[in-house]
Amino acid sequence: MVSRKSIASVLDDYEDLVVATVCSHSSLQIFHGARQEGFRTLGIAIGERPRFYDAFPLAKPDEFLLVDSYADILDRADDPFGNREVLRWETDREKQREWLTSAGVSMPAKIERPQDIDRPVFVKYYGAKGGRGAFIAKNYEDFKESIRPGMKYTIQEYVVGTRYYIHYFYSPLATNGYALSKGALEMLGVDRRDEANIDEMYKLGAQEALRKIDMRPTFVVTGNMPVVLRESLLPKAFEMGERAVERSIALFGGMIGPFCLETIVTDRLEFKVFEISTRIVAGTNLFIAGSPYSDLTEPGMSTGRRIAREIRTAQKQGRLSEVLS
Amino acid sequence: MVSRKSIASVLDDYEDLVVATVCSHSSLQIFHGARQEGFRTLGIAIGERPRFYDAFPLAKPDEFLLVDSYADILDRADDPFGNREVLRWETDREKQREWLTSAGVSMPAKIERPQDIDRPVFVKYYGAKGGRGAFIAKNYEDFKESIRPGMKYTIQEYVVGTRYYIHYFYSPLATNGYALSKGALEMLGVDRRDEANIDEMYKLGAQEALRKIDMRPTFVVTGNMPVVLRESLLPKAFEMGERAVERSIALFGGMIGPFCLETIVTDRLEFKVFEISTRIVAGTNLFIAGSPYSDLTEPGMSTGRRIAREIRTAQKQGRLSEVLS
Amino acid sequence: MVSRKSIASVLDDYEDLVVATVCSHSSLQIFHGARQEGFRTLGIAIGERPRFYDAFPLAKPDEFLLVDSYADILDRADDPFGNREVLRWETDREKQREWLTSAGVSMPAKIERPQDIDRPVFVKYYGAKGGRGAFIAKNYEDFKESIRPGMKYTIQEYVVGTRYYIHYFYSPLATNGYALSKGALEMLGVDRRDEANIDEMYKLGAQEALRKIDMRPTFVVTGNMPVVLRESLLPKAFEMGERAVERSIALFGGMIGPFCLETIVTDRLEFKVFEISTRIVAGTNLFIAGSPYSDLTEPGMSTGRRIAREIRTAQKQGRLSEVLS
Repeated sequence: MVSRKSIASVLDDYEDLVVATVCSHSSLQIFHGARQEGFRTLGIAIGERPRFYDAFPLAKPDEFLLVDSYADILDRADDPFGNREVLRWETDREKQREWLTSAGVSMPAKIERPQDIDRPVFVKYYGAKGGRGAFIAKNYEDFKESIRPGMKYTIQEYVVGTRYYIHYFYSPLATNGYALSKGALEMLGVDRRDEANIDEMYKLGAQEALRKIDMRPTFVVTGNMPVVLRESLLPKAFEMGERAVERSIALFGGMIGPFCLETIVTDRLEFKVFEISTRIVAGTNLFIAGSPYSDLTEPGMSTGRRIAREIRTAQKQGRLSEVLS
Repeated sequence: MVSRKSIASVLDDYEDLVVATVCSHSSLQIFHGARQEGFRTLGIAIGERPRFYDAFPLAKPDEFLLVDSYADILDRADDPFGNREVLRWETDREKQREWLTSAGVSMPAKIERPQDIDRPVFVKYYGAKGGRGAFIAKNYEDFKESIRPGMKYTIQEYVVGTRYYIHYFYSPLATNGYALSKGALEMLGVDRRDEANIDEMYKLGAQEALRKIDMRPTFVVTGNMPVVLRESLLPKAFEMGERAVERSIALFGGMIGPFCLETIVTDRLEFKVFEISTRIVAGTNLFIAGSPYSDLTEPGMSTGRRIAREIRTAQKQGRLSEVLS
Repeated sequence: MVSRKSIASVLDDYEDLVVATVCSHSSLQIFHGARQEGFRTLGIAIGERPRFYDAFPLAKPDEFLLVDSYADILDRADDPFGNREVLRWETDREKQREWLTSAGVSMPAKIERPQDIDRPVFVKYYGAKGGRGAFIAKNYEDFKESIRPGMKYTIQEYVVGTRYYIHYFYSPLATNGYALSKGALEMLGVDRRDEANIDEMYKLGAQEALRKIDMRPTFVVTGNMPVVLRESLLPKAFEMGERAVERSIALFGGMIGPFCLETIVTDRLEFKVFEISTRIVAGTNLFIAGSPYSDLTEPGMSTGRRIAREIRTAQKQGRLSEVLS
């Protein structure tokens, strides 16, 4: 979010802009990028000032704002970067699917009723952060065994392949690059999420055997690893990103800035998008000093810095209202 | 490949050299590297101009050449970088094995007849790109179940260990560095290939159980991850590269430029080379801005740039014919 | 280790200091970092001069010292960087556990007697380098089947989760940063170790099935991959590092310089530290040109360079005796 001392006078006054964010998730990168673009920074923390920023002088916010709860933060949020409208389309899994599939982006099949499970599926709960509670079921019996009563869920086909979390940036202000109907699309990196305990429990034995000692896979994101995509997949990756953005413009005025398509690439070299995140994702933290992709646009360009750059550009052009909501 | 307007006059005329490549695989890196070394660049595409280069201004070719088919490209190939002779030794799996084993490079055992399969083996089809169709068999029954009739194949022992794809560069022009009988050897990076669906299907359960729902591992390369080798393995890694190059000089005048030894390191810390690629491999795309290895030769040196540097050096020394074929 | 021609005059004489290390493990990085900080470098090799440094001109030591055996090296070690006392606390697994648990760092449970194995456990031999010989046992029968007689071992609970090897640097000299009771703590990177054959044997089938062909997991480190931690885990990561350092100061005067907490993050987002390495670890070799963490302290800062910087700082302040032992 961007705070302004005085909204009226801001467009001509660079000194007045402060980039603020909550002290978690991708804050080091956001503060670092904002500093690189000449902004002052504000870290919002719950309770007390986090000490770990002291170890990262290039990413330490200029000031801290201590609050009692996340509710306080939402109350004070001045001008979030991006389009607020997108949240409604992202958090509701039905709407998210409507958005992407109507854009022509291929998703894993949706299974409407658990009784209809006829192949491996992945079950996720609504609003669960970072994969918490999700499970794999190979049939209806599995499903019944694992489902927690009273919670809203979706059932998706479990597509087998390799996962790529593609970091895009959509700029409504850009006048060159990969041109969309308005602005341009960039690709700043790709990561793979690292999940406990699904990513390493195989070391202990087969899932079928581990079940007997009551151990089941879980899907909690604990970190990220860098990857690059097979280059012949890039045209498809851009086409998917383009479709998602263009459709967002038609549906709700457009998502702005960073977003991530969370994909599986099958052995037929087809993408399946199992989710969209319409914000900076933690996987971008790998690329503080640039990625094999962003190095081809501008060396040293992280997603955090790209956000700051977009705000600066908007400010210079007197178009801040187009990127803040 | 390198195009020349006029072969006769080229040696004294830097402006005349154009680095050209097909718009796929590692083209971003090749264009980027060629630009860094001051070359003009030409992207050869089938059908229409690919749009994704617009998103990567530092790797966008200066011009495009649109062709109807790959055959057209081969017809027009002026002067490919490297030694054409190497292709005959790489594409024929028998000759490849002859080359490497006669060089003293250790390979997984070859099983001559499927009836003789007495341990886990890996079966690959001739000429199959990126692992397509390959399969694991633990015995003759497995083999018969999976083999596709009418296709030429090889059967190699399946060596268990961790995989390292080592990116070498052999320069016949270099006068210092890791010296070979002529020129010198460099190591520019190491990656691991990421394959659908073998790399992630374990998440769904044991292979033995997945077979019942007719799901079998496949080995299609979809991307790459960066790795570094245990440092005590470096002397062996250089020795293997050296042997492969020296033997290539004896056999067919030498492979030139980038090549990759595709290795498995066992728990006895021994290398087994299951394949050699005598060209730039896609794993080098990770290291557009340098790798933990190339950073120790020259910061910012990708394999794409190293190729361009070699052409430039050859040109300056009037020795282009030694690196183009 | 740091060699001095004349200990008496060294504090005022920069030219006299030579950074020396054994030609293995992380030597490229140490030589590179020492050169970056203006030191002369000495490579100590057994038998003959290793050739692979020729391929890495920025990391090639100025001179080599050839010795007959490791014993010779220990005899000649002038002034090792860091506190010698730490070795006694690291190599003895009982003392290591005492140190960390008394510091309040959470470790996997220790099983005193093999008869008491009531969950999956990991068995390691004393003094075994890089995981050699270690094995997983799910019960007492497993243990009896795999244990080698006559060797000293420890039995730890096998915690399921994802592994992060966190590279810290403790500077007793630093006057700002993440402040400890004396000096400050830095975090320079995170890697994951790559182990043959546990990390890839799943491709061949379930462990339960592979046992029938007498194939069992082994844990020999062959390389490293870069990772980043979920940012919300950073406060805990620093707290753990801080506790380990403060306790080391109380116990034996403090470990100095690089150390690594080898952790598992569970799906409850809790760290379990299964080992501490009180020196530069090989995973830092990934970050020769900086990591997503060190890029936020000073671009281009490897652990090797950080060590050299610390020596230089100590020298400038006339405090060499505080960082050499």
